[in-house]
Amino acid sequence: MRTKAAVAMEAGKPLEIMEVELEGPKAGEVLIEVKATGLCHTDDFTLSGADPEGLFPSILGHEGAGVVLEVGEGVTTLKPGDHVIPLYTPECRECPSCLSGKTNLCTAIRGTQGQGLMPDGTTRFSMLDGTPIYHYMGCSTFAQHTVMPEIALAKVRDDAPFDKICYIGCGVTTGIGAVINTAGVEIGSTAAVFGLGGIGLNVIQGLRMAGADMIIGVDLNDDKEEMARKFGMTHFVNPSKVDDVKAAIIELTKTERDQIGGVDYSFDATGNVQVMRDALECSHRGWGVSVVIGVAPAGAEISTRPFQLVTGRTWKGTAFGGAKGRTDVPKIVDWYMDGKIEIDPMITHRIKLEEINEGFEMMHKGESIRTVVVY
Amino acid sequence: MRTKAAVAMEAGKPLEIMEVELEGPKAGEVLIEVKATGLCHTDDFTLSGADPEGLFPSILGHEGAGVVLEVGEGVTTLKPGDHVIPLYTPECRECPSCLSGKTNLCTAIRGTQGQGLMPDGTTRFSMLDGTPIYHYMGCSTFAQHTVMPEIALAKVRDDAPFDKICYIGCGVTTGIGAVINTAGVEIGSTAAVFGLGGIGLNVIQGLRMAGADMIIGVDLNDDKEEMARKFGMTHFVNPSKVDDVKAAIIELTKTERDQIGGVDYSFDATGNVQVMRDALECSHRGWGVSVVIGVAPAGAEISTRPFQLVTGRTWKGTAFGGAKGRTDVPKIVDWYMDGKIEIDPMITHRIKLEEINEGFEMMHKGESIRTVVVY
Ligand SMILES: NC(=O)c1ccc[n+]([C@@H]2O[C@H](COP(=O)([O-])OP(=O)(O)OC[C@H]3O[C@@H](n4cnc5c(N)ncnc54)[C@H](O)[C@@H]3O)[C@@H](O)[C@H]2O)c1
Ligand SMILES: NC(=O)c1ccc[n+]([C@@H]2O[C@H](COP(=O)([O-])OP(=O)(O)OC[C@H]3O[C@@H](n4cnc5c(N)ncnc54)[C@H](O)[C@@H]3O)[C@@H](O)[C@H]2O)c1
Ligand SMILES: [Zn+2]
Ligand SMILES: [Zn+2]
Ligand SMILES: [Zn+2]
Ligand SMILES: [Zn+2]
Repeated sequence: MRTKAAVAMEAGKPLEIMEVELEGPKAGEVLIEVKATGLCHTDDFTLSGADPEGLFPSILGHEGAGVVLEVGEGVTTLKPGDHVIPLYTPECRECPSCLSGKTNLCTAIRGTQGQGLMPDGTTRFSMLDGTPIYHYMGCSTFAQHTVMPEIALAKVRDDAPFDKICYIGCGVTTGIGAVINTAGVEIGSTAAVFGLGGIGLNVIQGLRMAGADMIIGVDLNDDKEEMARKFGMTHFVNPSKVDDVKAAIIELTKTERDQIGGVDYSFDATGNVQVMRDALECSHRGWGVSVVIGVAPAGAEISTRPFQLVTGRTWKGTAFGGAKGRTDVPKIVDWYMDGKIEIDPMITHRIKLEEINEGFEMMHKGESIRTVVVY
Repeated sequence: MRTKAAVAMEAGKPLEIMEVELEGPKAGEVLIEVKATGLCHTDDFTLSGADPEGLFPSILGHEGAGVVLEVGEGVTTLKPGDHVIPLYTPECRECPSCLSGKTNLCTAIRGTQGQGLMPDGTTRFSMLDGTPIYHYMGCSTFAQHTVMPEIALAKVRDDAPFDKICYIGCGVTTGIGAVINTAGVEIGSTAAVFGLGGIGLNVIQGLRMAGADMIIGVDLNDDKEEMARKFGMTHFVNPSKVDDVKAAIIELTKTERDQIGGVDYSFDATGNVQVMRDALECSHRGWGVSVVIGVAPAGAEISTRPFQLVTGRTWKGTAFGGAKGRTDVPKIVDWYMDGKIEIDPMITHRIKLEEINEGFEMMHKGESIRTVVVY
């Protein structure tokens, strides 16, 4: 069949809207009509050429929601008409990682997914002249139709709006999951969130849901304060307006009884390696846990004195918020529908696929939190 | 009173054996007759001048065992004749850290201890000419008698030999505790231990006790292999004899089913920051936990790509093995007396206080595992 897509032809160039060929689903695969997709920083990272593993031409996009149109041979858990969220982290429930019970990083199709291919080692997309087009993060939601492995689709309820729940395909789950799955924040905790963008705001609402007492937001951009307060931030620090952001956070958390200070949990949602270090070092001696969410530039390294760890801090990271997609994503959709979490105020812009390059420009300018393409 | 001590007069100089003045215990303090003390790398680190917080003149030593001679006003948990192990990490059971239930890093007397002073801000030791001599790590077991706060003494059973259980005051507890308290190793785990010295061997016996399946030891010195195997090491890697120690460890842990490889838990017991990095990076994607035990040179930093954390590895550290001294040390003494852990083969040398400088020389040459001074 033919479908419309925004194709990344080359690193650093705008996406090109065009008709592309899409082969039907093979065994274990599913054809999806994408109804909406968010624009995430990771798409932008790859498009810019900064991602050393980026492949071109490819169809980017990994934060979608849609409807099953057709299932390939052997697919048993999905049928046409089912509403689904594509998963860039699949959940096969059979590989050593899935069975470990310790990680969401399923390895069933890791090799081919990283090469921009379906599990059989080929692509479903091609240009009208026959040139293959790479898949991206196993999703490629910047196309009106896409083909995905069954194990990389979360079946969700039918009454949830696509243009909101697509955000659960990446940003919402990453931010909330970092709090719940990776950090395991307890009621009454103190926390600091570095970066109040599309991920950081979701960390904040995750912390509110987890019952944190003090939620300190940190951003270089004062404009981020207002929205973050709406999601539960209790204190704001702009690093450019204090001598030392770590000292400022430690000061905020000191109490009459605890003169050491530091947050119980901290989160990097900037991708800046110096921020990752600050996040670790402002966490509490003895038990502070710091979680890296941001994706750093290629080759960048994090550093600290080992004494920071020896005196009881823990450094962790999270991918897709540690969420097991097929199991956890439908629950997060329920939380949204039940009003336990908010998404609507974070979807600041809705655009057509034809406007996708303008969407990335708004991201660069910091004007949007989430821009969603509605097909 | 007067007692005999090995005094560190200056950084980089041999210890001097001399008579010193020791004031009796003040309120909340206890006078101890030290019966035996181990020589630990941390003593050597301070004596060498490498420790930026080292103070001179001081009486080093922090791995002791002895008997209570006299208690100061208000001391209720100890009486003359009790057998005790000095604790460089006290356990007050009242400070925010003790009450957190999340850390052993009691802060009750942290400020003064770091300054080489008793909690009232003075020293009990002085030279015969009246010059104060600093305490060290709150212990100063290189003196035949010492004064310590009540909260920094673990009461242990009377039938345990001082010249063995003194090692529980640092090395044994640090190594075993890193496994049990900090890493929380489960039965059937795979593990790598970097550095098979006095700490590493205890990590190995901790892993054996925790039921690890595969215990990979790593040391530049082949002579360490034999002893480590006696404590439970199942595989040995000498980094100077393989191309890439990380790759070698990952290869060892691959199975037919798990083609990713990497250990569930890794431990640095060298103090080398490059080793700390290798230890993290040879741990398993998705769930590997790496624990820093070694004390790095002043100013040295650990580094890695944040991707190592984002893909599910956790970097931690441990001080005194995460053990709460007054609670856990008596249990570890019981384990030794019950034969659950071994200490005797690790005490390779027994010397008199007068021979202490020769003891440090054997440490430098790598000839000893633990040298114990018996008073
Ligand atoms: N680990 C994962 O699974 C995962 C998933 C999605 C996104 N990410 C990553 O998360 C990061 C955040 O994504 P986002 O969509 O929220 O980005 P964003 O641009 O919307 O937000 C980043 C925020 O950080 C602020 N900031 C930048 N530098 C700062 C500094 N030095 N100190 C304080 N604040 C600073 C910016 O002002 C901005 O508000 C990105 O690196 C992205 O690639 C990770
Ligand atoms: N965190 C704590 O509470 C704590 C407590 C006590 C000691 N320590 C520290 O633990 C470390 C180990 O102490 P120890 O008494 O066992 O020392 P040790 O000298 O007895 O043992 C160190 C071992 O590491 C090996 N080694 C050195 N460099 C290596 C390398 N690059 N690769 C592989 N092996 C290497 C040496 O051959 C030696 O066998 C020291 O740094 C010490 O200061 C920490
Ligand atoms: Zn994303
Ligand atoms: Zn799997
Ligand atoms: Zn020691
Ligand atoms: Zn305490």
